[in-house]
Amino acid sequence: MNERSKVRLFVDHPLGPGQSVGLTETQAHYLFAVMRLETGNAVAVFNGRDGEWQALVTETGRRRGSLRCDLQSAPQVLPPDLWLLFAPLKKTRTDFIVEKAAELGVRRILPVTTAFTGTDRINRDRLQAHAIEAAEQCGGVFVPEVAPLAPLSAVLADWNPDRRIMWCDEGLADRPAAAADAATLTAALPQRRPAAVLTGPEGGFAPAERERLAALPFVVPVRLGPRILRADTAAVAALAVWQLACGDWTGGA
Amino acid sequence: MNERSKVRLFVDHPLGPGQSVGLTETQAHYLFAVMRLETGNAVAVFNGRDGEWQALVTETGRRRGSLRCDLQSAPQVLPPDLWLLFAPLKKTRTDFIVEKAAELGVRRILPVTTAFTGTDRINRDRLQAHAIEAAEQCGGVFVPEVAPLAPLSAVLADWNPDRRIMWCDEGLADRPAAAADAATLTAALPQRRPAAVLTGPEGGFAPAERERLAALPFVVPVRLGPRILRADTAAVAALAVWQLACGDWTGGA
Repeated sequence: MNERSKVRLFVDHPLGPGQSVGLTETQAHYLFAVMRLETGNAVAVFNGRDGEWQALVTETGRRRGSLRCDLQSAPQVLPPDLWLLFAPLKKTRTDFIVEKAAELGVRRILPVTTAFTGTDRINRDRLQAHAIEAAEQCGGVFVPEVAPLAPLSAVLADWNPDRRIMWCDEGLADRPAAAADAATLTAALPQRRPAAVLTGPEGGFAPAERERLAALPFVVPVRLGPRILRADTAAVAALAVWQLACGDWTGGA
Repeated sequence: MNERSKVRLFVDHPLGPGQSVGLTETQAHYLFAVMRLETGNAVAVFNGRDGEWQALVTETGRRRGSLRCDLQSAPQVLPPDLWLLFAPLKKTRTDFIVEKAAELGVRRILPVTTAFTGTDRINRDRLQAHAIEAAEQCGGVFVPEVAPLAPLSAVLADWNPDRRIMWCDEGLADRPAAAADAATLTAALPQRRPAAVLTGPEGGFAPAERERLAALPFVVPVRLGPRILRADTAAVAALAVWQLACGDWTGGA
């Protein structure tokens, strides 16, 4: 309860002992008009790099204000070196994927266009704000970067083969022989190694995309069970099982 | 593509060779006004019990119509004997949990009130409709029943101890010693045995609830990684990892 009930704020500012932090208009509005904080009240702040700090309100105003860092309340920790590549869906479902990816722990979020992707642009600022809000809400100290939208083909052409891609291949749902248990996932996508999860749009991948993915040595096709999942469900389910089988759910925090 | 692009409809009616199926006003509107089907067109229908059938439109109308079953296009299959117990959240996030549970494969969905649950009623019809829509969209032939809202304490008092409960205990996030890998989950919640996943409200479980849950022999506390997850994220992530470690993602369809 304690971590989640207090006011937490992401600030794009260096944090350290005695560090003064100026607030933006939006932040001042949130802290002083919405949360009704006053001079001397405590706020937890993080910037994605310096851990979480307890800060005190030193100046309040309608459109501005400032805080001063007191003590570090949590060290900086990074999620595993996992990226999420996903084809953007309709607005709400795309927002949802970004929020859940930030919570489940990824380092980077890369929206990609594919043959059947229904959209050719995203509101990157809004998606980044969703990732920040997820970290604020869940007590996280890291915020994944949302990369610009790029064609999947270009992303694959530049890919570092050391980072394996867990390709959620919806074509495998009706092929029981492709079933993978956790040990199989761990063997194909070794624990604590750079990795990425790839999910497609509602229509799945086009035959030419499937051929190319299947031929790439760093791509591991994975079956997410016998039922067809919606694209947003597949992204969340894949991140959860990767964390269990290959990420930091096992062993140290 | 084929399974998902055709028109699929849940009907509350027996299905079999030559069986005639009358349509409700809503179904007639969807098939004839929205999807523009005409007499002789094919529709895939399922009722949650008799598999999927190819049916032909035999009568159209503004407020009524009928279909005739032709061939069974998919056998009836059941998801594993998994229930989801969850504390209802705000409307959108509750809808989301029900949709994702239906996709990921559960037999029953039981909304439960807990000490920190912010709502004391649900729109059960709307939630049931979400479960049906998820099955329609994802090619499923089974629809989990959404049970009436009930207090967690009453549900636990009547519990059959043969069904183990995977209790997603958010209090374990900062306890690395509680980390569970897939093999540990499988050992504690044996594959293909009746089970349930339990997730709490945004505020987590109250101390008295935690004490009671911890003392019940059929309850297995599980840590969903080192990061705090929102309640809806926890539900989806828990269902996915249960399916991987204890459900039907491994082995036959």
